[in-house]
Amino acid sequence: MAKIADKYFVTDPWNIIEEGFNPEYSSVSESIFSLGNEYMGVRGYFEEGYSGKSLIGSYFNGIYERQEGERSAYKGMVNITEFMVNSVNWLYLRIKIDDEILDLSNSKIKDFKRVLNLYTGVFTRSFVWITKSGKEIFLEFERYLCMMDAHLAGQKLEIKPLNFSGDIIIEAGLDFSNPHEMVRENLWNLEDKKTDELSCRILGSTIGTKQKVFSCCKFSGDMTTMGDLKASSKIVGKIFRVSLQEGKVSTFKRIVKNISWNGARQSRSLCEFYSECETALSSLEEYDYEFLKKSSAEWWKNTWDISDIEIKGDELNQQGIRYCIFQMHQTYHGVQEGAVIGAKGLTGEAYSGNTFWDTETYCLPFYIFNNVKAAKQLLMFRYDTLEEAKKRAKELDCEGAFYPIATISGKECCTLWQHASLQLQATTAVAYGLWHYENVTKDKEFIYTYGIPMLIEIARMLASRGDWNNDRTYYGYYGVMGPDEFQMMVNNNCYTNYLGKETLDYTLQVLNQYRETRPDNYDNILEKYNLTKTELDYWQKISEKMFIPYDEERKIYEQHEGFFHLPHVDVDKIPTTDFPLYHHWTYDRIYRNDMIKQPDVLMFLFLYNDRFSTDVIKKNYEYYTPRCIHESSLSPSVHSILATQIGKDKVAYDFFGFATRMDLDNYNRNTHEGLHTTSIAAAWMNIVYGFGGMRSDGKMLKFAPSIPDKWEGYSFCVTYAGDTIKVLIDKSGASFHTLNGTNVKIKVYQKEYTINGNEIKLPFVFEEE
Amino acid sequence: MAKIADKYFVTDPWNIIEEGFNPEYSSVSESIFSLGNEYMGVRGYFEEGYSGKSLIGSYFNGIYERQEGERSAYKGMVNITEFMVNSVNWLYLRIKIDDEILDLSNSKIKDFKRVLNLYTGVFTRSFVWITKSGKEIFLEFERYLCMMDAHLAGQKLEIKPLNFSGDIIIEAGLDFSNPHEMVRENLWNLEDKKTDELSCRILGSTIGTKQKVFSCCKFSGDMTTMGDLKASSKIVGKIFRVSLQEGKVSTFKRIVKNISWNGARQSRSLCEFYSECETALSSLEEYDYEFLKKSSAEWWKNTWDISDIEIKGDELNQQGIRYCIFQMHQTYHGVQEGAVIGAKGLTGEAYSGNTFWDTETYCLPFYIFNNVKAAKQLLMFRYDTLEEAKKRAKELDCEGAFYPIATISGKECCTLWQHASLQLQATTAVAYGLWHYENVTKDKEFIYTYGIPMLIEIARMLASRGDWNNDRTYYGYYGVMGPDEFQMMVNNNCYTNYLGKETLDYTLQVLNQYRETRPDNYDNILEKYNLTKTELDYWQKISEKMFIPYDEERKIYEQHEGFFHLPHVDVDKIPTTDFPLYHHWTYDRIYRNDMIKQPDVLMFLFLYNDRFSTDVIKKNYEYYTPRCIHESSLSPSVHSILATQIGKDKVAYDFFGFATRMDLDNYNRNTHEGLHTTSIAAAWMNIVYGFGGMRSDGKMLKFAPSIPDKWEGYSFCVTYAGDTIKVLIDKSGASFHTLNGTNVKIKVYQKEYTINGNEIKLPFVFEEE
Repeated sequence: MAKIADKYFVTDPWNIIEEGFNPEYSSVSESIFSLGNEYMGVRGYFEEGYSGKSLIGSYFNGIYERQEGERSAYKGMVNITEFMVNSVNWLYLRIKIDDEILDLSNSKIKDFKRVLNLYTGVFTRSFVWITKSGKEIFLEFERYLCMMDAHLAGQKLEIKPLNFSGDIIIEAGLDFSNPHEMVRENLWNLEDKKTDELSCRILGSTIGTKQKVFSCCKFSGDMTTMGDLKASSKIVGKIFRVSLQEGKVSTFKRIVKNISWNGARQSRSLCEFYSECETALSSLEEYDYEFLKKSSAEWWKNTWDISDIEIKGDELNQQGIRYCIFQMHQTYHGVQEGAVIGAKGLTGEAYSGNTFWDTETYCLPFYIFNNVKAAKQLLMFRYDTLEEAKKRAKELDCEGAFYPIATISGKECCTLWQHASLQLQATTAVAYGLWHYENVTKDKEFIYTYGIPMLIEIARMLASRGDWNNDRTYYGYYGVMGPDEFQMMVNNNCYTNYLGKETLDYTLQVLNQYRETRPDNYDNILEKYNLTKTELDYWQKISEKMFIPYDEERKIYEQHEGFFHLPHVDVDKIPTTDFPLYHHWTYDRIYRNDMIKQPDVLMFLFLYNDRFSTDVIKKNYEYYTPRCIHESSLSPSVHSILATQIGKDKVAYDFFGFATRMDLDNYNRNTHEGLHTTSIAAAWMNIVYGFGGMRSDGKMLKFAPSIPDKWEGYSFCVTYAGDTIKVLIDKSGASFHTLNGTNVKIKVYQKEYTINGNEIKLPFVFEEE
Repeated sequence: MAKIADKYFVTDPWNIIEEGFNPEYSSVSESIFSLGNEYMGVRGYFEEGYSGKSLIGSYFNGIYERQEGERSAYKGMVNITEFMVNSVNWLYLRIKIDDEILDLSNSKIKDFKRVLNLYTGVFTRSFVWITKSGKEIFLEFERYLCMMDAHLAGQKLEIKPLNFSGDIIIEAGLDFSNPHEMVRENLWNLEDKKTDELSCRILGSTIGTKQKVFSCCKFSGDMTTMGDLKASSKIVGKIFRVSLQEGKVSTFKRIVKNISWNGARQSRSLCEFYSECETALSSLEEYDYEFLKKSSAEWWKNTWDISDIEIKGDELNQQGIRYCIFQMHQTYHGVQEGAVIGAKGLTGEAYSGNTFWDTETYCLPFYIFNNVKAAKQLLMFRYDTLEEAKKRAKELDCEGAFYPIATISGKECCTLWQHASLQLQATTAVAYGLWHYENVTKDKEFIYTYGIPMLIEIARMLASRGDWNNDRTYYGYYGVMGPDEFQMMVNNNCYTNYLGKETLDYTLQVLNQYRETRPDNYDNILEKYNLTKTELDYWQKISEKMFIPYDEERKIYEQHEGFFHLPHVDVDKIPTTDFPLYHHWTYDRIYRNDMIKQPDVLMFLFLYNDRFSTDVIKKNYEYYTPRCIHESSLSPSVHSILATQIGKDKVAYDFFGFATRMDLDNYNRNTHEGLHTTSIAAAWMNIVYGFGGMRSDGKMLKFAPSIPDKWEGYSFCVTYAGDTIKVLIDKSGASFHTLNGTNVKIKVYQKEYTINGNEIKLPFVFEEE
């Protein structure tokens, strides 16, 4: 937990500001200044080209390549991975004066500044370029991605010569020629390219997966067309001349439309895609750079109205949490069928753009309470990939559906069998996500239509992957790894068994409700999924006999059978130079003791919080926390939330520590690889579930707000029951109201209230430590 | 256990005979007709060339190449493997008549016959070749490897034209041009080659490891030299013409001297090697084909005198066990420093020529009782590679020495971390081997000089790899795999803990004896190995507190903590089509139940048999046997031995089943990859320890002979206490005498006897079932 902030950006409530150019920090800034709109994402790279270290990351959600490793001799092991592939650089520029090319790695510049405006989503960069002949030019680059129509984006360049008049050459294009960082090869074939006087278009196709990305753009501004750009066979573009006048701003602008087609799961055909490409350029006619920018800023304003968290008296966390919320909405907001939340969002290539169980466990709550359409879309990804999960179950000698640990397309992409074969948590997380979604939204229709097919297949997996103990007195999961990845192959992991039981119970409950409310259709369901009473009874029996290792006397759940007997490691005595442990400890040594990586028992105590007394939570928290090294960035927030619940406010705030600024302050020193997108979701939870004391797993939405000593006040919003609840907390207590005045029932400190448009102010109630 | 014999060879007490050429079976025959003398080995391939499927396997013990895989991100994982590489084909011939080349894949032949004479070690092959023009020639090939001077070998070809007189062309050479089967590339650089009128020489060097093999040969016979052979840049040789006369036998012969240099661990320098090569050809002058053949046959006669097992009334097992004994002596007899017993000996490339724990556990007993010099040499391999084992321990965050699971040079070559990092049995097997060797031979000098350094480092590993349970009441090994490879990562595997304890006890006992017998030198030992009383006391403490999971009530050892609770699999209900399980069951599914692959608890009950009552052995046998699927070829013999001990004679004979004929009848259908050399050792044990009831782990050598119903009688020899004990068993009992008349004390059926040159006949004593 000894992480140290690398404080670099200017503190500001609504902006991320970098002052001065620091090549050493350039890759981190590239990640930090990433823009995204779920459909596509671009890192904050220099569009004019840069001969220093840079990752020209321009990504499309669901556009990936495939790599095949050596086939294992063992059954069920995965040897194919799919990874997000960097695509067309639709911001491509080259800028020349007197044959001198602008390149921040070589050119002389001053007054460098980058600003990302979180309130509007606009990213600007400006500096003064001093050419070899002494010409000084002020340049300001601007870019945004549209949030309404996610295919669209804008780029602007303002140029002001400070001490001369004369020509500047701008080459502007669409570039498919960049190599992939990991593979070190370019992974695109060019299908087509074309230019007109003030526009160009290009169509690329991934070499292996044959997915397609089309990009076209329309240029405008104070320039004269000189001809076509011929920099490389995989670039299309135009060469422009701008005649600059001293002291006067000239402008270059483009609006871009990008269309991707990943071939899979999407309802539209290749023909439809081609036809969309054909009309794309002409459809740009109706748009204008400033109009798109304005409408996108409006989208952001509306979003902030219902999503903002305001913190008074803590500028760092204020900036941090807004950056987090901004990234959550950028990464995903439910615009594209089949889109996923990669572990790094669309900001870098680490984790291959794959999505993990974090999606349902950490991200889904944010969307449930901020953008329910997006929440539904996230769950639909699992519905759309159910067939892949069924295939995977077969590969693993299971029935039903086994959801992948890491995936883009629904196929398992984790080549480490220890995780891909032993971790059931991705599958149970899908069921948990459905249950949580229904519990908050009451959207039974969705569960009946899309949830039931998933739940049935998940239950089947759970009924076939587990086994009965030797004397057949209880059921459990053998040879598994729980969320704590420091215990590799264990029996009856408490989290796995608990989630298994909850999943089976929920499945049976949904089916029972369906039978009761739609008796006429129930038999159709049974027939369609070939469900028999025998099978349902077996699920019931398994659930009843599910082994949950628990020490009655100490009220502590045992993380797995035998965990209490494992050799003890005093994690505080591990030298800091031993971290990260995977690099310094023998692989197997990590697994031979009671040290844990991230919450496991504490995780289900958080997810199903309402089921457990504060006393039980406290006892388990006190047992497991000293054993946890938080090597996952998802770990501290869960500990912080539970610490608040049991009244350990100081510890809770310590755990909150770097949650909101994980990337802004580069705590893990790997922000250059991309943002910790799913940790960002945990930061939001840390405030809302932690200090705000919200609980969404009970029958009614509950709050138990408290306030960190260092804060003067804070507020947050959650969209719920047809309105948005705004919660304002200051030193004297918490007030609640609905933004649109709807009457909404909630519980605060265990008491029921109906809130409406008028603020109800309640004093703090402290639980005893 | 449902293995089916593929009966193919003619049954004969002293010969392996193949009648008729069967291309489909050719690869199996190539393995079966392998010759070896520890220093080198050749498969029974057709030296005249063969365009059908063939593995030109000509190997030298300790000559290997290296392959580097992707480096793992995890510490302690191995990414480099070393594998035995096929080397010079010193039998290379090509035979032509009228420009028609002999090739058994295309040529017309009849009366094909191959014979391996186990009594003399000579391998012959004969057939009649009918050329396209109708010429008929009888050809007989003969080869042998010298057992006295293992560098030497001979090859003979007799040619008799049956219906014509005329010329035949023989090309004879030394060939380094063959590709390696797995790598599919030739792995040799040629350093030098040279010919004379009737001789040639060649020197090759492995590309990666820079090891060297020199080969030279001297030709003789009824031929005229035509010139030099120029078939390939990596071949050297001569072209000869033989003028054949109808009905008369012409002869071609060569004697060969091969010298290898593996660069490592050997006491001689590269200069010395080169100088040996220089004089090699001239040293051949003193030898003659027939002389070498005769002296080698004499070696075999002497060996059979003290090693033969005769079985009356069971021709198949008679042939089988003699083939086994023949292979054991061929594979290893203690002639070369640093030589190892690969899992396939020198007969094929499966398992990469690597040696495993089988060496000390299964093979060493054979040598202890048949060739004690070889036994010592085997242990010396571990002494010579102690430094590598110490490096490996460091890689695994351990102190002391961690011996490799699979190795040629002493480096760990197993790239599966599950085995390489979790199995301690290779290391404890070294200590067991030392202990067993001393227990039988009483050779304390060897143990003091070479054993102590190994034992100290092994004890250090055992004291650092293990850990104390949570409340520090007992010590054990966590995250291990025992001999039963169907339980992957378990805690307190009973075999591992038991062997750990025995090893520590033995180490302390040896050091104590040393102190008592050589008090003056004891402090030198302490100083040399930096041993303190604290360290020795800690070993004592660990041993005392070693956790041996045991159910007192049922008298059953628990294979590991929690094994008794594992889900039960009825192994008899697994469809035969599911075998081998690794191909048909998901990798992790194999590990999730109480099914076991090979003896684990039963293994230490066998190794330290004297420590356990028949009752305990019986109870454990009855518990574990129904759970074992014997997927290791080493498994049935141990079961057979214990079954005999507890009076289950019928079961014991069933387990013995295919032991002696595993390869002759190709039970596993993979004999084409090479022989199951270490299983061959188990077959010997099965008779001597099983039916012969020998036990060598107590204070005195014991016997408790019985006789399988189907046998009329059998005899075996064990070299012990300065003489060779011959045991003859018939239906009426067992008789004992020493071949040279020495007085030797043994126990038979728990009673002590002093035997000598006169047979003592004792009736059977049956233990109750």
